[in-house]
Amino acid sequence: MRWNKISDAVIRRLPLYLRVLDELANESETESISSQELGIKAGVGPALVRKDLAWFGEFGKQGVGYEIGFLRDELRKILNLDGKLPVALVGVGSLGVALTRYHLKRFAEDSSFNLELVALFDSDPAKIGDSVEGIPVYALEDIPNQVKEKELKIVIVTVPANVAQEVTNQFIKAGIQGVLNFAPIKLKAPESVHVVAADLSLELQRLAYYVPKATD
Amino acid sequence: MRWNKISDAVIRRLPLYLRVLDELANESETESISSQELGIKAGVGPALVRKDLAWFGEFGKQGVGYEIGFLRDELRKILNLDGKLPVALVGVGSLGVALTRYHLKRFAEDSSFNLELVALFDSDPAKIGDSVEGIPVYALEDIPNQVKEKELKIVIVTVPANVAQEVTNQFIKAGIQGVLNFAPIKLKAPESVHVVAADLSLELQRLAYYVPKATD
Repeated sequence: MRWNKISDAVIRRLPLYLRVLDELANESETESISSQELGIKAGVGPALVRKDLAWFGEFGKQGVGYEIGFLRDELRKILNLDGKLPVALVGVGSLGVALTRYHLKRFAEDSSFNLELVALFDSDPAKIGDSVEGIPVYALEDIPNQVKEKELKIVIVTVPANVAQEVTNQFIKAGIQGVLNFAPIKLKAPESVHVVAADLSLELQRLAYYVPKATD
Repeated sequence: MRWNKISDAVIRRLPLYLRVLDELANESETESISSQELGIKAGVGPALVRKDLAWFGEFGKQGVGYEIGFLRDELRKILNLDGKLPVALVGVGSLGVALTRYHLKRFAEDSSFNLELVALFDSDPAKIGDSVEGIPVYALEDIPNQVKEKELKIVIVTVPANVAQEVTNQFIKAGIQGVLNFAPIKLKAPESVHVVAADLSLELQRLAYYVPKATD
């Protein structure tokens, strides 16, 4: 499902709510949760929880709160996670391999996660045809047919900065619609493609703001 | 420097501006940039550029724009990046090692980056005393004295989820003030400590929202 005009800040918080609901559904006997509790567990103010969810419908009941299983299912539908979503990764260097292992572990632990890393890509002939944790490594030339065949929707980019735009263009041309970019450059993409920057240097620089100096 | 009450969304964009200014200062002969150009290069609307920067002072001149070197230096001061800021990483597994290499590369390429990875930590006796790319690996028992001695301000957490909170607590107790968390759990921290979640599964789930299904 897609709703237009909803701020990205709202969308950012939905996976936090979903995680809390997943945990509660697995661990506890409780069937409902108040916006207060959901807010505390997700690290979000209770008024904001109600406001965020109200964008998508009437999910809560006065005096009862939210029914956990129902709200979880609704959030999965909103986030397009009610079915398997195949994901690719390009750049099978140390970061790419580490992420592959890390994600596979997450996916294996959580069968409801629904994002599935199914194809790796690299330009190195020594890596092509090999596999990492059982996931095959394809050549860049295979991008068009693999995107089509595996219905790949999202690509994780872990190639060096100087080739990141060119490689991303190939995926976009092949029909990919979401990019999680680890390369330390700002990727250009048409409006129909959503790019999330996972640039660690930006995150660290942002953190630095919150670290007062000894002289402050 | 620190300004209270400024939204995290504003702070998130400052490193984007800084990167554009760094590139321009290195590459071009131009001495000034309009908010329009700065916005386009940073991927931010020009009105937002002016609004963001106005929080911190009067940096631009009507009809001239921003003086590149001056604005860069001011942004560095605002972000506490006008001097070296020592960073630690805990969890020397495949992700930790990949990030260490990735960041070292960034730091080496950009002498003005000012965030410096100086200490690694792990609980594995086989790793303690060793080094990765020249950076020593310390035991968790060494957290208090290393944080003090190296004046560590920020820690990157790449340990497994089940020990992440406990390990983070040790760093907070030792005086760390910023945490970049890669473990797939929400870390609790006192208000004085700023936590940024670099959780990839959340980023991917957020991306999924923007990926329309074949049936949509």
